[in-house]
Amino acid sequence: MVNKLLSQLASVEILTPKIDDTLWFFKDILGLHEVGRKDRSVYLRGWEDWYAYSLKVTESDTAGVKEIVWRTYSEKDLIDSINIVNSNGLGLGWDEGEPDMGVGKGYKFILPSGQIGKLVWEMKIWRASGELRSGYKARPMKKPTKGVQAKDLSHIFIFAYNDESLAKTVELLKRLTFKVNEILKEGDKRIAYWMAVNGTAHDLAVSLDPSGVPARLNHVTFNVDYADDILKAADFYTDYGLEIVGGPLRHGITDSHSLYVKEPGGNVIELLHGGYLNVVPDWEPIVWDTKEDENRWLYYWGHVKEAFWHGSPIPANRVSDELKEIVRQKLGAKI
Amino acid sequence: MVNKLLSQLASVEILTPKIDDTLWFFKDILGLHEVGRKDRSVYLRGWEDWYAYSLKVTESDTAGVKEIVWRTYSEKDLIDSINIVNSNGLGLGWDEGEPDMGVGKGYKFILPSGQIGKLVWEMKIWRASGELRSGYKARPMKKPTKGVQAKDLSHIFIFAYNDESLAKTVELLKRLTFKVNEILKEGDKRIAYWMAVNGTAHDLAVSLDPSGVPARLNHVTFNVDYADDILKAADFYTDYGLEIVGGPLRHGITDSHSLYVKEPGGNVIELLHGGYLNVVPDWEPIVWDTKEDENRWLYYWGHVKEAFWHGSPIPANRVSDELKEIVRQKLGAKI
Amino acid sequence: MVNKLLSQLASVEILTPKIDDTLWFFKDILGLHEVGRKDRSVYLRGWEDWYAYSLKVTESDTAGVKEIVWRTYSEKDLIDSINIVNSNGLGLGWDEGEPDMGVGKGYKFILPSGQIGKLVWEMKIWRASGELRSGYKARPMKKPTKGVQAKDLSHIFIFAYNDESLAKTVELLKRLTFKVNEILKEGDKRIAYWMAVNGTAHDLAVSLDPSGVPARLNHVTFNVDYADDILKAADFYTDYGLEIVGGPLRHGITDSHSLYVKEPGGNVIELLHGGYLNVVPDWEPIVWDTKEDENRWLYYWGHVKEAFWHGSPIPANRVSDELKEIVRQKLGAKI
Amino acid sequence: MVNKLLSQLASVEILTPKIDDTLWFFKDILGLHEVGRKDRSVYLRGWEDWYAYSLKVTESDTAGVKEIVWRTYSEKDLIDSINIVNSNGLGLGWDEGEPDMGVGKGYKFILPSGQIGKLVWEMKIWRASGELRSGYKARPMKKPTKGVQAKDLSHIFIFAYNDESLAKTVELLKRLTFKVNEILKEGDKRIAYWMAVNGTAHDLAVSLDPSGVPARLNHVTFNVDYADDILKAADFYTDYGLEIVGGPLRHGITDSHSLYVKEPGGNVIELLHGGYLNVVPDWEPIVWDTKEDENRWLYYWGHVKEAFWHGSPIPANRVSDELKEIVRQKLGAKI
Repeated sequence: MVNKLLSQLASVEILTPKIDDTLWFFKDILGLHEVGRKDRSVYLRGWEDWYAYSLKVTESDTAGVKEIVWRTYSEKDLIDSINIVNSNGLGLGWDEGEPDMGVGKGYKFILPSGQIGKLVWEMKIWRASGELRSGYKARPMKKPTKGVQAKDLSHIFIFAYNDESLAKTVELLKRLTFKVNEILKEGDKRIAYWMAVNGTAHDLAVSLDPSGVPARLNHVTFNVDYADDILKAADFYTDYGLEIVGGPLRHGITDSHSLYVKEPGGNVIELLHGGYLNVVPDWEPIVWDTKEDENRWLYYWGHVKEAFWHGSPIPANRVSDELKEIVRQKLGAKI
Repeated sequence: MVNKLLSQLASVEILTPKIDDTLWFFKDILGLHEVGRKDRSVYLRGWEDWYAYSLKVTESDTAGVKEIVWRTYSEKDLIDSINIVNSNGLGLGWDEGEPDMGVGKGYKFILPSGQIGKLVWEMKIWRASGELRSGYKARPMKKPTKGVQAKDLSHIFIFAYNDESLAKTVELLKRLTFKVNEILKEGDKRIAYWMAVNGTAHDLAVSLDPSGVPARLNHVTFNVDYADDILKAADFYTDYGLEIVGGPLRHGITDSHSLYVKEPGGNVIELLHGGYLNVVPDWEPIVWDTKEDENRWLYYWGHVKEAFWHGSPIPANRVSDELKEIVRQKLGAKI
Repeated sequence: MVNKLLSQLASVEILTPKIDDTLWFFKDILGLHEVGRKDRSVYLRGWEDWYAYSLKVTESDTAGVKEIVWRTYSEKDLIDSINIVNSNGLGLGWDEGEPDMGVGKGYKFILPSGQIGKLVWEMKIWRASGELRSGYKARPMKKPTKGVQAKDLSHIFIFAYNDESLAKTVELLKRLTFKVNEILKEGDKRIAYWMAVNGTAHDLAVSLDPSGVPARLNHVTFNVDYADDILKAADFYTDYGLEIVGGPLRHGITDSHSLYVKEPGGNVIELLHGGYLNVVPDWEPIVWDTKEDENRWLYYWGHVKEAFWHGSPIPANRVSDELKEIVRQKLGAKI
Repeated sequence: MVNKLLSQLASVEILTPKIDDTLWFFKDILGLHEVGRKDRSVYLRGWEDWYAYSLKVTESDTAGVKEIVWRTYSEKDLIDSINIVNSNGLGLGWDEGEPDMGVGKGYKFILPSGQIGKLVWEMKIWRASGELRSGYKARPMKKPTKGVQAKDLSHIFIFAYNDESLAKTVELLKRLTFKVNEILKEGDKRIAYWMAVNGTAHDLAVSLDPSGVPARLNHVTFNVDYADDILKAADFYTDYGLEIVGGPLRHGITDSHSLYVKEPGGNVIELLHGGYLNVVPDWEPIVWDTKEDENRWLYYWGHVKEAFWHGSPIPANRVSDELKEIVRQKLGAKI
């Protein structure tokens, strides 16, 4: 019997120093729908995200990721998951969630890579009312008529800041029942992992960037409905002054079509189409090698900017004092 | 913790009275790859099917489905699944599988709808050697350069032959851990169910056709890589003399792009693109109504031929004497 | 040396009794860009239309087409073209054009099918300034971020109201140097013609509808950049409450992908992708037959609503008193 | 009245030192159809090419272009065109054509850039008989079920070998009624021209490569039916061991989607989708600047390999003794 504690990545909170421009990007170019605002945060969703929002954008003095939220499969799985993070000394305690948006209380923890995760069971299916209600009864809302109509949140790709950070992060994620589908190594060293709880090629990936700076974001990714939307997005990006940092391309790892852009706030956002579904129970992770396979793991065809990957990753987000303190206490890192 | 006994639909065996024409269809038009032949059967696969074959085509005097094979999540899950079918008196015993193709022994049973199912644990991941080996390391083989390059087996859609048959079939499938995503009702009566074990909108569907004839096939479906492949297939189908029986369309139920054709042997084969991923743990099935929603559940846009659905389903395959005997014994049906 | 008096269809003026809804359709769903308003008219353009506008939408008490504007290849060609329409007694005199939009004076005439045409030489290339200026230097403006981003005006399809009207219309259009690419006949009678001056499969088509009512519009068509935009438009149309009257389909005649919708004002608007380029100098028109070829000339695959074509064409627009008077005088028709 | 002597690019003859591999590329990967063989040449066509063949592949000891064939608009236009090339001292005399393929006698000449051109009037429309006959009556043949189904010949891109060669080539092409749509300059110097006789953005382009070696080929281009075919081709190219030298990308100049590959024989072959139609009579060429616009003229998004463009163009084909002699005599070049 398959052993899954987590059902899916539910939402990601990212930071931006340019909230208006960032919102223009997500709403007018990607076509996400705004479902609410609170304080300095705006809640957005793709037309096929099952819960109220999949992206929380919060104004800040820097770019970066603030919180990653996973839903568990049941209340018991929540308890079991909490026990796992606590047994690693990573637990940070409960927060109340966003009850007015159908998201109940969650248990926060720090990943050994430094990012803040949250485990939630109580989460209500969202469906639009009024004019945005779709006639496709399972579709949560009509497709917005803006931009490329990003469909739903696909995955988040995070950095681990040193070898130990990477090893411990992967170890924890496996215990939280992530299935590792593909691995990248550099010589003898494993430097990146693509994994999922939801049966896709990846709903989470983590790679080594030996910067010593914890909690850094590689990118956040949304799916699109059509491969042509990737081409259409490339057109929007270039002509509306956004910087494409990779693609259109097809990844060797995950076998998906991709396009990376730096949104005005500095975060790298990927659009994805295709890629495999993989629920093979006894899957052995595929291993790629940066030497043997050169860059084909990243772009089997197409291209990415040199600066995008490993070495000078973007965005180079600064770490807040609050987070530094948690990292010092929980991870024992000197920062 | 999610409770899944079955990991996925592994393969389907269909019958054809015109083996050469049927193979031309699957190989030259759909672009499936032939991996072997045995007796009167040919084994085919899409370029992204994980196991050796997903379609077994067997020469016969009629069209129809002969066997549906599911893989379990583990050896223990195989035992548990067998116990379930046996507790319903539906077990038919072991067969040896196709060991030379990496498919081990399986336990056969009859569905209350009359089709023969098989449960298998031992199944080896398949990867091409030689010229067909892909550089995408997770991709089992290169895309063939023929036809529309159907990607992998998506689902099978079967008929139940009366109300009781439908109810019992759904009951059994739920016990085998299928998750029901959408339901169609006609007035007060539920007449069709879309369900999955693999996290998609459906890898199995069953609908009522009160013909009294058990074991009938509605259609078998393969995924394509690009939405444009649906359009390209429509072009091939019409210009090469095949009969499109529905589409291009977008289903209301499952929210996927679709095209139905009658292959030369008489079976209806669907191509699919898109559709949602749904691993929501507490999902309540969406219910459509043939009156309230008219045909939108079937085609939200696009069109299908009248004859295709309910009433005069195709193909009207005759039932073999051997199967009749099983149906009489196991299901107590008078045929 | 090729003999072309006209270079291209420059714009079409259509009428609508629901100006706000019609504008929502063209701007939010099709993604046309508004370049100006005057009196009861709004001027719209696709991002790749070369002149200021390709669609003029005018509020009226009915749907329909008011004016069809063609540009000539030179000033001399304008004079020659005027001589042709005048020699047929169809001339209606000059109008001043839209000088503030770069469209100079034009000579109006009535087609033997009853619609008003206009011949213009003076027409300025349009290019956006400011934020809408595209970095693609030949592209007149950025792609709007709304709807399906209709690219440019493709063609207009008009009705002739009886046999003589059709014959005379085609005769005139040939003299104006349209090249007939394909013809539809019903038994011995030719009932529709697809023709072009711009090298495509058609930038104009005319078919017989023996209603006796002159000046009726079949539909107006815009191109889209991607085939998937046809599918995306079908999704928008159905989910936002618009009535698809045909498609997605591929025409037998012109070999193009198509989708027909009735916009809120009642006019049928088509989106087109692909179709052939045909500059073969000695091309003999292809002839289709409604009996022999059934409906394949209209939809080689896909489908249209019965009511759409011949018999009960839409929209059934009423004829204004002013136009009736012109029709009586110039065409000698009793209406 | 538009002044066109030539109607279209009818065919291109290219050379290859690896005829079998080159044919595998064009037939199995691009999906061109073989219509005949003669001596060391094979004749190929896309499914929508109007004449018998658009590509003649001839075995040789090098890659390169051997002959470029244009059809005139009439017999008189043929005479007028011949007079133009003769008045420049570039005429080389008649050849008999390929009468068994419907291509009559043609007049050969040398372009000031060194390539051999041919002017033909007598050319028969080609339509498949038998199984390949399409039901789309205007479509010359069914789409082959192989590869990406390249649709038809789009354009040829040639090099001029010094400044004077470029200037004289463009001058001649303008007299032959090519319309220049876009120009690239480097500082004050114009170094490339995109032009057409058929109303598209380009059916011919020429750029400066100051190698001093005449008659060199930049690339030959075919159109595809769907934008996704560009992505599909990229997949085939990489996985079947072909070297992509540029793309998938969208050109700034011509606004078209593109993918460049080096076929096994060494010639660069481009696939194209989209791009504008431009029959504007008083079009002023758009001018791009390599400094101001950087590489956006070549790839507005996407990427090409450094080596592909200007500097080390591919393929570096050797010039035959026969051609050298013609170049010396007709162009007065020292080689």
